[in-house]
Amino acid sequence: MKRTLGTCYYPEHWPQDIWAEDAKRMVEAGLSWVRIGEFAWSRIEPSPYQLDWQWLDKAVETLGNAGLKVIMGTPTATPPRWMLDKWPQMLAVDASGAPKKFGSRRNYCFSHQPYRLECQRICALLAKRYGDNPHIQAWQIDNEYSCHDTTLSYSEAALAEFKRWLKNKYDSIEALNNAWGNIFWSMEYNSFAQIQLPNQCVTDPNPSHLLDFKRFSSDQVVTFNRIQAEVLRKHSSAPLIHNYMGRITDFDHYKVGADLDIASWDSYPLGFLEDRSEEGDDWKLHFSQQGDPDFQAFHHDLYRSVGRGRWWIMEQQPGPVNWAPYNPAPLPGMVRLWSWEAFAHGAEAVCYFRWRQVPFAQEQMHTGLYTADNNPAPGLAEASAVAAEIETMPEVSTASAQVALVFDYESDWAWQIQPQGASFNYFKLVFDYYRALRSLGLSIDIIPPDSTSLENYKLVVIPGLMSFNTQLTAAIECFSGSVLAGPRSGSKTANFALNLQPPMPGINNKVSYVESLRPSVELPLKDSGKVFNWIETTTGDDPVIERTACDRPVLIGTDKRQYLTAWADREALIAMLKKLCVAEGIAVQELTEGVRVRETKTHRFVFNYNPQTVQYNGVSLAAAAVHWELL
Amino acid sequence: MKRTLGTCYYPEHWPQDIWAEDAKRMVEAGLSWVRIGEFAWSRIEPSPYQLDWQWLDKAVETLGNAGLKVIMGTPTATPPRWMLDKWPQMLAVDASGAPKKFGSRRNYCFSHQPYRLECQRICALLAKRYGDNPHIQAWQIDNEYSCHDTTLSYSEAALAEFKRWLKNKYDSIEALNNAWGNIFWSMEYNSFAQIQLPNQCVTDPNPSHLLDFKRFSSDQVVTFNRIQAEVLRKHSSAPLIHNYMGRITDFDHYKVGADLDIASWDSYPLGFLEDRSEEGDDWKLHFSQQGDPDFQAFHHDLYRSVGRGRWWIMEQQPGPVNWAPYNPAPLPGMVRLWSWEAFAHGAEAVCYFRWRQVPFAQEQMHTGLYTADNNPAPGLAEASAVAAEIETMPEVSTASAQVALVFDYESDWAWQIQPQGASFNYFKLVFDYYRALRSLGLSIDIIPPDSTSLENYKLVVIPGLMSFNTQLTAAIECFSGSVLAGPRSGSKTANFALNLQPPMPGINNKVSYVESLRPSVELPLKDSGKVFNWIETTTGDDPVIERTACDRPVLIGTDKRQYLTAWADREALIAMLKKLCVAEGIAVQELTEGVRVRETKTHRFVFNYNPQTVQYNGVSLAAAAVHWELL
Amino acid sequence: MKRTLGTCYYPEHWPQDIWAEDAKRMVEAGLSWVRIGEFAWSRIEPSPYQLDWQWLDKAVETLGNAGLKVIMGTPTATPPRWMLDKWPQMLAVDASGAPKKFGSRRNYCFSHQPYRLECQRICALLAKRYGDNPHIQAWQIDNEYSCHDTTLSYSEAALAEFKRWLKNKYDSIEALNNAWGNIFWSMEYNSFAQIQLPNQCVTDPNPSHLLDFKRFSSDQVVTFNRIQAEVLRKHSSAPLIHNYMGRITDFDHYKVGADLDIASWDSYPLGFLEDRSEEGDDWKLHFSQQGDPDFQAFHHDLYRSVGRGRWWIMEQQPGPVNWAPYNPAPLPGMVRLWSWEAFAHGAEAVCYFRWRQVPFAQEQMHTGLYTADNNPAPGLAEASAVAAEIETMPEVSTASAQVALVFDYESDWAWQIQPQGASFNYFKLVFDYYRALRSLGLSIDIIPPDSTSLENYKLVVIPGLMSFNTQLTAAIECFSGSVLAGPRSGSKTANFALNLQPPMPGINNKVSYVESLRPSVELPLKDSGKVFNWIETTTGDDPVIERTACDRPVLIGTDKRQYLTAWADREALIAMLKKLCVAEGIAVQELTEGVRVRETKTHRFVFNYNPQTVQYNGVSLAAAAVHWELL
Repeated sequence: MKRTLGTCYYPEHWPQDIWAEDAKRMVEAGLSWVRIGEFAWSRIEPSPYQLDWQWLDKAVETLGNAGLKVIMGTPTATPPRWMLDKWPQMLAVDASGAPKKFGSRRNYCFSHQPYRLECQRICALLAKRYGDNPHIQAWQIDNEYSCHDTTLSYSEAALAEFKRWLKNKYDSIEALNNAWGNIFWSMEYNSFAQIQLPNQCVTDPNPSHLLDFKRFSSDQVVTFNRIQAEVLRKHSSAPLIHNYMGRITDFDHYKVGADLDIASWDSYPLGFLEDRSEEGDDWKLHFSQQGDPDFQAFHHDLYRSVGRGRWWIMEQQPGPVNWAPYNPAPLPGMVRLWSWEAFAHGAEAVCYFRWRQVPFAQEQMHTGLYTADNNPAPGLAEASAVAAEIETMPEVSTASAQVALVFDYESDWAWQIQPQGASFNYFKLVFDYYRALRSLGLSIDIIPPDSTSLENYKLVVIPGLMSFNTQLTAAIECFSGSVLAGPRSGSKTANFALNLQPPMPGINNKVSYVESLRPSVELPLKDSGKVFNWIETTTGDDPVIERTACDRPVLIGTDKRQYLTAWADREALIAMLKKLCVAEGIAVQELTEGVRVRETKTHRFVFNYNPQTVQYNGVSLAAAAVHWELL
Repeated sequence: MKRTLGTCYYPEHWPQDIWAEDAKRMVEAGLSWVRIGEFAWSRIEPSPYQLDWQWLDKAVETLGNAGLKVIMGTPTATPPRWMLDKWPQMLAVDASGAPKKFGSRRNYCFSHQPYRLECQRICALLAKRYGDNPHIQAWQIDNEYSCHDTTLSYSEAALAEFKRWLKNKYDSIEALNNAWGNIFWSMEYNSFAQIQLPNQCVTDPNPSHLLDFKRFSSDQVVTFNRIQAEVLRKHSSAPLIHNYMGRITDFDHYKVGADLDIASWDSYPLGFLEDRSEEGDDWKLHFSQQGDPDFQAFHHDLYRSVGRGRWWIMEQQPGPVNWAPYNPAPLPGMVRLWSWEAFAHGAEAVCYFRWRQVPFAQEQMHTGLYTADNNPAPGLAEASAVAAEIETMPEVSTASAQVALVFDYESDWAWQIQPQGASFNYFKLVFDYYRALRSLGLSIDIIPPDSTSLENYKLVVIPGLMSFNTQLTAAIECFSGSVLAGPRSGSKTANFALNLQPPMPGINNKVSYVESLRPSVELPLKDSGKVFNWIETTTGDDPVIERTACDRPVLIGTDKRQYLTAWADREALIAMLKKLCVAEGIAVQELTEGVRVRETKTHRFVFNYNPQTVQYNGVSLAAAAVHWELL
Repeated sequence: MKRTLGTCYYPEHWPQDIWAEDAKRMVEAGLSWVRIGEFAWSRIEPSPYQLDWQWLDKAVETLGNAGLKVIMGTPTATPPRWMLDKWPQMLAVDASGAPKKFGSRRNYCFSHQPYRLECQRICALLAKRYGDNPHIQAWQIDNEYSCHDTTLSYSEAALAEFKRWLKNKYDSIEALNNAWGNIFWSMEYNSFAQIQLPNQCVTDPNPSHLLDFKRFSSDQVVTFNRIQAEVLRKHSSAPLIHNYMGRITDFDHYKVGADLDIASWDSYPLGFLEDRSEEGDDWKLHFSQQGDPDFQAFHHDLYRSVGRGRWWIMEQQPGPVNWAPYNPAPLPGMVRLWSWEAFAHGAEAVCYFRWRQVPFAQEQMHTGLYTADNNPAPGLAEASAVAAEIETMPEVSTASAQVALVFDYESDWAWQIQPQGASFNYFKLVFDYYRALRSLGLSIDIIPPDSTSLENYKLVVIPGLMSFNTQLTAAIECFSGSVLAGPRSGSKTANFALNLQPPMPGINNKVSYVESLRPSVELPLKDSGKVFNWIETTTGDDPVIERTACDRPVLIGTDKRQYLTAWADREALIAMLKKLCVAEGIAVQELTEGVRVRETKTHRFVFNYNPQTVQYNGVSLAAAAVHWELL
């Protein structure tokens, strides 16, 4: 498949007389796609039921006539001000009980039924008008679900829907009391009507209560999205997309993705490094103008899974952004590197956000491909270079990986609810495994926790999975490759009780107790590396593969089924994973720090995330360089 | 007295058919006591006025018949969900004005009168049913008052009771205005009806207002507890106990204790080290699997005072807990060490929390003597070892101490209200003195600020006491031993105004002004050690005993009455206290770090809190070892 | 003009029979002024409309008869408790929506119209009674506007007035939508009635919305103050004063000052060092008993501008205060040094706060010239020494400065709203320039952003000015001296949109994009020093004067008009400013750290803020010493 480029454009921000010139320049820059409309509700429907299509018709026509394919966004992330007069109860409510006011975006509660109908209505109007418009080649539903911490809402609407959801799940209040263990601390309910949302308690609420509230909240995103998907499909055959964010786990992306055709994500490598990375200062300093060398790839692989193979970058950082604690410029070459890395991981399209820096309102300091006074910004040349390279190089196709990594949203909720140690962070744990695998030069598939078959892989790693469901258990049982799981994998039942059985299929030991360790505690291993943060003590006869220097077992099991009882550092993880790869005949190469590779069916791409030149297999890679070679 | 062991058990969490086996095993493990019932209101009274005694009758009978003595808990810390439907205003309200929701525990407001009546009613029902049951050998009222910061409530109920309390105390609003100094900043009230709770002010409220609110809130705990005590005593002659917590000062434990027969506390050495110690990282690392070597002893000595000589450990940590930032396992031997240290300080009983790890709800990660799948956990063997040792060793009786340390809850409230320097912390100050005394190998009595006689002691130390009341003043005036007070002792009147007289009996100087110092400021003393945090300048002719290197007086007074104007470090405190002890003929021994001793009437117990072997008077003490020798 | 001293006195705190003795001692100490009354509303009007003048008449008479000039404060910062019963809606509301309760001070909302009328009423009563009293020589309106973060209020009253203010400013909602760029994120309003206050949004509100709310809130302070000024002027010809605070920027002090005759400020050098300085620990430790050597001078120069030449210190710290995180005593000599530094910068009077330490309520730990038990405190002797020196030395008159520094309140609001980098702090930026100029021994005028002429100066520096207005632009255009502006100066329009033109008059380059840098990033300059925090990339042909070592331009422009694109460190700023001074013929002298000078028309004053002796031009200056010499 030919990879494509695009951009995000807001015709409503600019005089109509420059639209055509903008469209012409987009095409000249080598862009194919242009996303519009996703924040324009107040212009489409300036007051209730008074619709203004003229400008949008003209925008679509102008862009389409220039040769661009249009992604039409549904504007439901930014209800206009009059909507709040109509539905004052539609506002999301935070954990302190305060409703979110108008004046930014994403202030709606997913559970508010009338607002859902309003969204259905505006989608239907858009779909009817543009469903068969040839320029509309894709739809984006809403924008960045959960951005700004907007999945959870403690509104009356949410409470009403939560009770309904629980009734549907448990049928009887006795079943709920039993599932949650409400006998503990006299938390038993007499009826579903007594259920409250789990905020503002004296101390921790029941973890089962919290987990069900997280599941419910995630499901509300799923059904909110589905309503729009259904109405769009009625009138259009163009693919449906949502643009997810980086490191957001408050809803189950796999479930939202199941109703869509393509997953996309908004990739801001420098913003995410400063805003969402737990790495230390030295790391952030080294990569401050390049981004974390594994963060983008992780999300590429994750969203390829969410999109069941089809995925895009909907928003690609083209220069400094406005929202992170610190906002430097990318090192020259990084915009190109990020774009090619996405393609190497299978992206169909990369769209730059935004076409032109807008001189007003919240994002006026966010750069674009053009400056606010309409001069080319540094990102433009790199985007155009990528466009030219796409034209001249053969098509690249996604290769299949030999290693799979299970990533599970529910596990993140579970360990947020009961971390047991202040340092326990599921995303970090999975990411540590991912980074170790990538450091070995491996291509990785990220797979969901309900995968029914693992037969495409030789090695499957499953860190911190709350609970093995029946599908995954069955898949492991008939899997001929190797599985490495833990720590904490399989430690709970689906109801958030302790699992009193062995933690994973193929392991016989049981976990007797766990210890969380203060940051200064480190236990070196006999072999290489060390463990920290977390260590479990198991009981049973499973062989011990690796121990601490003080002789505590940390890796137990057999050649093919291994359970890691502790949080291992990078050196230890690399050593353990390398042994498993060698045993399974998976080729590994230990990469220089900051160098990463990804193979497609035909090529090996090499990326230098470092700010200095490095050597890779005899090739000299300049700072921010991309290199590709035929396999 | 023969010391005894026990455990905390929740029959309602487990199938009835394993109760008898549980009871049998408890007895086999050498346990005598079993506490039950304190969170079971929803099972005793599943809906209003519908009582279910069957299961509890059977539990008592099963446990009692096995030979165990039952401590019956009143279930008032966890009102069932229907209680909130009945009394929606019963919820405690936090300082931001938010009522605490259902779903954990301790969500009631102590001032809510109808809830008090509900508690009285359930206690009366329990007392009538079990008051003369021979298996019920003790009662526990409620559970861990003030845990989770639950003493202060800003509810309407609290406001109404606070006004009543003030009216009772001051009689006229003029008297209140005068006592509080309300002329300052035009804070004068025209009537009691105008009084508000001291939250949500623009800047600091009047400190007298705050102090009275703290006193009132403490009194509400006292009267809440007294209602239950009175109703239990009507129907039972078994002793009444409450289980206090570690480092909780929001109510006056002496006053609650005055209505009870035995004080007990819940000792979680590792949890408290991580959650409630201000020591630095190195200290916490060194003691991370043992706990602070003085924290338990301090509370043993404090609660011996609160219980007027009779005290227990109601909950002893047996393994990792679930609630501290980090939850490691105790070093092997520590469960035994903690138990023996309690006995050496006079505990009548030590009960382990809990019998068996419960696999569901909030505390599922809290270990017990048995694992959730009913296998012995590491703590069980240590508890059994202690039981065996009790059997074989002669009885030990509490020795009287030669040194007393005054600990005053009100002073902690006062210095929280007006710390004057960000580092001023009353508990820390008193604990610094306590640690210095213990480092000298001394046995210490902690005594209340209204002690009427000091004649049992040779040395009394009184750090940071807000105000000397008439009893203590009189006791000091006729005391033939030595007194060391300060810094900040006697600096206020009972109304929280400046005391314009000399700070303590026997001292003539007055404090002219005080300075709080940033952490980097340290003033070395001429002799040994240094002062920091706080230094007062006094005026007068009192002799100067110790000065800073730059010649500022820090210790003034005479041989027998000394006032310390500054916060002294450990080295300086040890030097000053040692001199006083020598002068009074009190034997001291400077102990190796981490080694502590406690003498009973017949024995000297030596405890090694270190993770390595140390020498003590020719005895080699392994890590976590307890050693005892006849005096 | 002969400089004078004074003090702050609260007759209502003390028995009437000591007033005469107090007054006598004040005169003996060399004080001329005494401020009274500003917190005494509850004594003047104990209940609504019942006025008690007797005590205040007597206080004025007693003080006046002793030879003191009285500054009468209006008591509006502390409305009495009954006022809230009368006007429950008068309370300021914080950003979380909580109204501020009674019990401290400054709890009123500036927008509440009935409270404004109450203030007008009490002022009229005071003015009528004392307007022609010969002892009343000045008035102070209210007290420390904005102290305790009290400018912004999110009350219903504020919302109503904000809508009115917006309607007045924009006339039509279309104009507002356009000015704010509300098309962004569908933030368009249909009517002014839909406007809300910009709190509790999901993410950042529109910066134009926020900026207008800050402007509105500032204007509310201005009109609140003006009402009192007008009523006082009707009945009295004595000068009107307000006592501002240090480092408070939430309202435009120039605008409040325009309605008054004299600016004054409350100078707490040690409190401000601990509470409001961003300098590091080493700096704070070195100056912990002296205060930051530039902080006082900065405010002296600022308030000289706010007072259009006339300014006082209304409250001078005389010893330890009660409100900073740490409250040490001033080094002996500092009270004198601070007083003389104020005079050297042109203060007409310095009043010490307070006469006598008050033993009750919030400020009982705040020292005075006398201790609470009425003995001289250390500050008294220093105040008396200053009084004696004033008597014996010739009059000193304020000299004109050759260097001006623009300080703009609105810019501080703007960069708080959109810092773009977490380290960007306008006050810090301006203060860095000020410190660099002072380190060169310069006298500086601080001038407002709407200055219409710069002709008195040779050099004008303008860091971080949000927007050049037409007056300043015109003034620069006809200014023959040098101007150094930036970083970030002129980057916005008045509506808080990007300025798409060159940033300052005389510069042709445009800013293409900006980068904010993490703290660990530092870019050394080719010349001396380095830049950090912030760097802009400009496009155009302006000559480059200074570059980073890696060749990025940081100082551009011509000899007379220079724009600094980055945040320069002290070394770099000193180097750049020194060159400009030399070129303009301004004499500079690089001063030893901690030594500062200020010239009057006849003298050069030298201040040693160090805790050790230093040399200055052959003069040996002891710690805390002041030295003066004829020019």
